[in-house]
Amino acid sequence: MPRIEAVDFFYVSMPKVEDIGDGSQDACVVRVALGSQLGWGECEAAPLPTIAALVCPMSHSACHPVIESVLGATIATPDDIRALGDRVRARSLDLLQAEHALSGIDMALWDALGRATGEPAWALLGYRKSWPKLPYASVLFGDTASDTLAKAKAIRKKGFRAAKFGWGPFGAGTVKQDVDQLHAAREGLGRDGVLLVDAGTVWVEDLKAGLKRLKALAEVKATWLEEPFVSGALDEYKALAKRSKVRLAGGEGAHNFHMARHMIDHAGIGYVQIDAGRIGGISVAKRVADYAKKKGVTYVNHTFTSHLALSASLQPFAGLKDHVICEYPLEAKPVALAITRDRILPDTGGMVAAPDAPGLGLTIDPKALKPYLLDVEIKVGGKALYRTPRL
Amino acid sequence: MPRIEAVDFFYVSMPKVEDIGDGSQDACVVRVALGSQLGWGECEAAPLPTIAALVCPMSHSACHPVIESVLGATIATPDDIRALGDRVRARSLDLLQAEHALSGIDMALWDALGRATGEPAWALLGYRKSWPKLPYASVLFGDTASDTLAKAKAIRKKGFRAAKFGWGPFGAGTVKQDVDQLHAAREGLGRDGVLLVDAGTVWVEDLKAGLKRLKALAEVKATWLEEPFVSGALDEYKALAKRSKVRLAGGEGAHNFHMARHMIDHAGIGYVQIDAGRIGGISVAKRVADYAKKKGVTYVNHTFTSHLALSASLQPFAGLKDHVICEYPLEAKPVALAITRDRILPDTGGMVAAPDAPGLGLTIDPKALKPYLLDVEIKVGGKALYRTPRL
Repeated sequence: MPRIEAVDFFYVSMPKVEDIGDGSQDACVVRVALGSQLGWGECEAAPLPTIAALVCPMSHSACHPVIESVLGATIATPDDIRALGDRVRARSLDLLQAEHALSGIDMALWDALGRATGEPAWALLGYRKSWPKLPYASVLFGDTASDTLAKAKAIRKKGFRAAKFGWGPFGAGTVKQDVDQLHAAREGLGRDGVLLVDAGTVWVEDLKAGLKRLKALAEVKATWLEEPFVSGALDEYKALAKRSKVRLAGGEGAHNFHMARHMIDHAGIGYVQIDAGRIGGISVAKRVADYAKKKGVTYVNHTFTSHLALSASLQPFAGLKDHVICEYPLEAKPVALAITRDRILPDTGGMVAAPDAPGLGLTIDPKALKPYLLDVEIKVGGKALYRTPRL
Repeated sequence: MPRIEAVDFFYVSMPKVEDIGDGSQDACVVRVALGSQLGWGECEAAPLPTIAALVCPMSHSACHPVIESVLGATIATPDDIRALGDRVRARSLDLLQAEHALSGIDMALWDALGRATGEPAWALLGYRKSWPKLPYASVLFGDTASDTLAKAKAIRKKGFRAAKFGWGPFGAGTVKQDVDQLHAAREGLGRDGVLLVDAGTVWVEDLKAGLKRLKALAEVKATWLEEPFVSGALDEYKALAKRSKVRLAGGEGAHNFHMARHMIDHAGIGYVQIDAGRIGGISVAKRVADYAKKKGVTYVNHTFTSHLALSASLQPFAGLKDHVICEYPLEAKPVALAITRDRILPDTGGMVAAPDAPGLGLTIDPKALKPYLLDVEIKVGGKALYRTPRL
């Protein structure tokens, strides 16, 4: 029976990280050795605290370092991966960052188990087919409406029918500025484009600020308004949803199944957006996909980084034919692109799909990644708990 | 106007940390310098990941290290402390561990501001009086029912009228074993004792396991059953609450206002238990206390560590006369006791209260703490981001 022989976390980063809403500037890449089979994953998380959650000393029986629950575990079936997640959640209950650390390990295990058995992760999850998804180009709003117009036109030229504009100046200035931004995005995409809008939690829990933008969002026929508020503001979500012609989307902040379930049950959202790199991995994301389907809410991946993260985030809803929209990172930084040798590219019809290949279906490129690798050393009480492993 | 000149985190620990449900075996102690005034706080969190959340490199605009938002900020009023918390939450939105790091900083700021103005933190929070609370001795279940009986008797001898038994073997074995434990606790406390029971999330989200213990809990007249499930399992909480004569308690896992609000709104709990060292500090805990009061739910502190943490956790509900039960750590390890020179002790009537003294009202004892201080060093890319500061 294959056991987890090694778990290694790597902190890779652009030489300079800018203070912009671009999550692809660094990454916490995970490598597991399941017997002799390597698997790879990625935590969508601040790398240093996530490494610390992996290796820190135990604080008490509900605050174990993640690695203690993982190393040596036997993983022969999908249920073994799920049970390992339960074990980490129980033994690291009070270690907040543990769920982010677990996410990359869970991904890497689906990759390794898939490679060992010759099955795509989506097949191991019980799906019979990886259905094509409509990728939307996920980009930041331009600094001005005319920048956004140019961005939207460029996206159409690249062959994307759908685009999401988010963060940047949106929501933080006047209503008029936002109205101009929205009309610019619509104009650039054309009438038949799918326009998605991401407020990036800018109104925190200020319902009124959200209400003021509803008219313009409906005018430009946005498909969704994403994250008007922080994930926990369920009542404010629900109140906004009641008044909005445009459906709401949210959930990327969920770091366990229950948080996603609360949004589905109590926030009135039409789309639940899950980052497999945060919620506890592919195992938990699949559980959300099952629940969303049951409740009539559309599942969408949240992916703003690498193609490895994209593949992992596609697996949980690969088999849901009608859940067709998919976030597709378009402005990823070189470090994110260096992680995999291959990419998940749109087909001639402009659609993408989780690879029909074992595990997550992508080849990691350690050589390309090496220039971005940061040397990290963590010592506690004179003992080195972590040193950057060999890539 | 006083500015935050320094923020220092200290990792203190027992030489050996045991794999038991005792959170007092280590601590992440926080010292802030507000102008020339020092203030102290404590994160109820795994120290190493929390230190990493303080000092890690930025990943993107919503993933800043906590210290970046804190150093240099002007704090002249309570509202300034609250606004700083909002700033940290926005700028560290995607850094999961940030809310645990913020908690200790927020506490230390209430301490510093109180000392600078000569006011107790509870007075700065708007309360006119610090009402006496009935402390319950918070201990682990014994390994056997007869151990628990002896523990309960000893607690009564020490003068406590109320006790909470939790964790240990409870909930993980047979129903019969739990029934024996419960009757032993009641017998030891006597008929007039206040008996509280803490399942420590042992049933995760298994409603049936909880239902099986309801009869015995009612028989022994427990005042509450705490944490039958993980914090997020709102539906399971609600279903259990409907069938239970004994009221439910929960909320210690909440790491922001919204999570506590969800439990109050959707979990059917009678008591909401807040750890100021996790939820984002005294500021957020006070917001929960206000909300709980409005909704007819009783607020209780969650404190399993030091008297510094106890004082901080008493402040948010110090002025709520009718919210009278208070968790009181009785088996704290020497490292937790070394943090403060003074203690919050029961008065002749057996009651305790948040100190009527500036700030958190306790004197820190750096000399006593020093033997427990761990040397920590974190280097990224050749640069030392953290070295244990001078205590």
